Amino acid sequence: MKSEHIPKATIGRLAVYIQVLENLKHDGVEIISSEALAQACSVNSSQIRKDLAYFGEFGVRGVGYYVQELITSIKQSLGIDRIWNCALVGVGNLGRALLRHREFSRKGFAIKVAFDCDPYKIGELVEGLEVICTRKTKEKIREYGLEIGIITTPPERAQRAANYLVDGGIKGIINYAPSRIQVPDHIPVEYVDFFHHLYAVAFQIKLNEK
Amino acid sequence: MKSEHIPKATIGRLAVYIQVLENLKHDGVEIISSEALAQACSVNSSQIRKDLAYFGEFGVRGVGYYVQELITSIKQSLGIDRIWNCALVGVGNLGRALLRHREFSRKGFAIKVAFDCDPYKIGELVEGLEVICTRKTKEKIREYGLEIGIITTPPERAQRAANYLVDGGIKGIINYAPSRIQVPDHIPVEYVDFFHHLYAVAFQIKLNEK
Repeated sequence: MKSEHIPKATIGRLAVYIQVLENLKHDGVEIISSEALAQACSVNSSQIRKDLAYFGEFGVRGVGYYVQELITSIKQSLGIDRIWNCALVGVGNLGRALLRHREFSRKGFAIKVAFDCDPYKIGELVEGLEVICTRKTKEKIREYGLEIGIITTPPERAQRAANYLVDGGIKGIINYAPSRIQVPDHIPVEYVDFFHHLYAVAFQIKLNEK
Repeated sequence: MKSEHIPKATIGRLAVYIQVLENLKHDGVEIISSEALAQACSVNSSQIRKDLAYFGEFGVRGVGYYVQELITSIKQSLGIDRIWNCALVGVGNLGRALLRHREFSRKGFAIKVAFDCDPYKIGELVEGLEVICTRKTKEKIREYGLEIGIITTPPERAQRAANYLVDGGIKGIINYAPSRIQVPDHIPVEYVDFFHHLYAVAFQIKLNEK
């Protein structure tokens, strides 16, 4: 296992591989060739072989990959073979959409507590979760063993949300707010920015029209 | 201008640079050093210099970058210095969150029409837009000059949504549905997948705990 050295670009593609592999499993496929898997994932087959090599010796020459074995091994290596308890901070439109997004819990990321600082929202039930005052972050992180914080506040409140999460002992953060946050070095932060996808499509259309 | 050859990773970072530069402009900053810009963007300064070099000769030695000039030039190069008319297909929770997300129109991506195939949703007003039957995609793409399609359907309906958009003459697609779609080669497709960010954070936490 060389999982410590997995490059970030590989981790990005693994999300696609897992999605495609789980759809294949759902359809009853047990074995798939690297070419067919590559095509289904929209990458080339040498890339997929290189990426999967980080997880050990997979694939049987002339046969292909065992779908279930591959899913299990990727999940173990990434640490997503278990449930991660998550906190969501900011119950606006995006926060509500994420709370309603069944894929989160399906993929092992269980949003256990939703925080907001708006007194009109505190106490409201959203998808069965009571909205909790952001000041109680520390208390709730301990009570529920929350590990990952998901920030969906407006941009100007993202740093304050991050401060509450860090003070409370959160281990990692996903920031959907369109602003950068400062946290101690040992806390991993990932930014979700939809717009580079829009930029990339707009740019490609522009090149196509030349 | 070498914009045809801009690597995809650079385009990904440009979204961050633009966000940070626009915040700086908003705060009244006119000139910024490459070191300060790099720090605000959470990248190293040689990376930022390399990325920005695709857009021409920027930065004045010993002075820094002119914020407004840089914003204008990046936007021109990417083709995001104008309004792109967008269609959204699938008015579920995520679709509604995107329709309410003011950043889209602020960044030049104006969602002009929202489609759904559910008869109970057709005719409903969401953020001032009337939900239109998906069968009318072709007609509306022409009527509104729609160029980019945003798919927010459940995964099993994404391909059908893509077919409608392609038949209607759409120029590019952003797919938020967790499934791959097949479209003609000349139509750029970008997939928005939140989960690789969650995987990356979970993986980093796992490494930290070793």
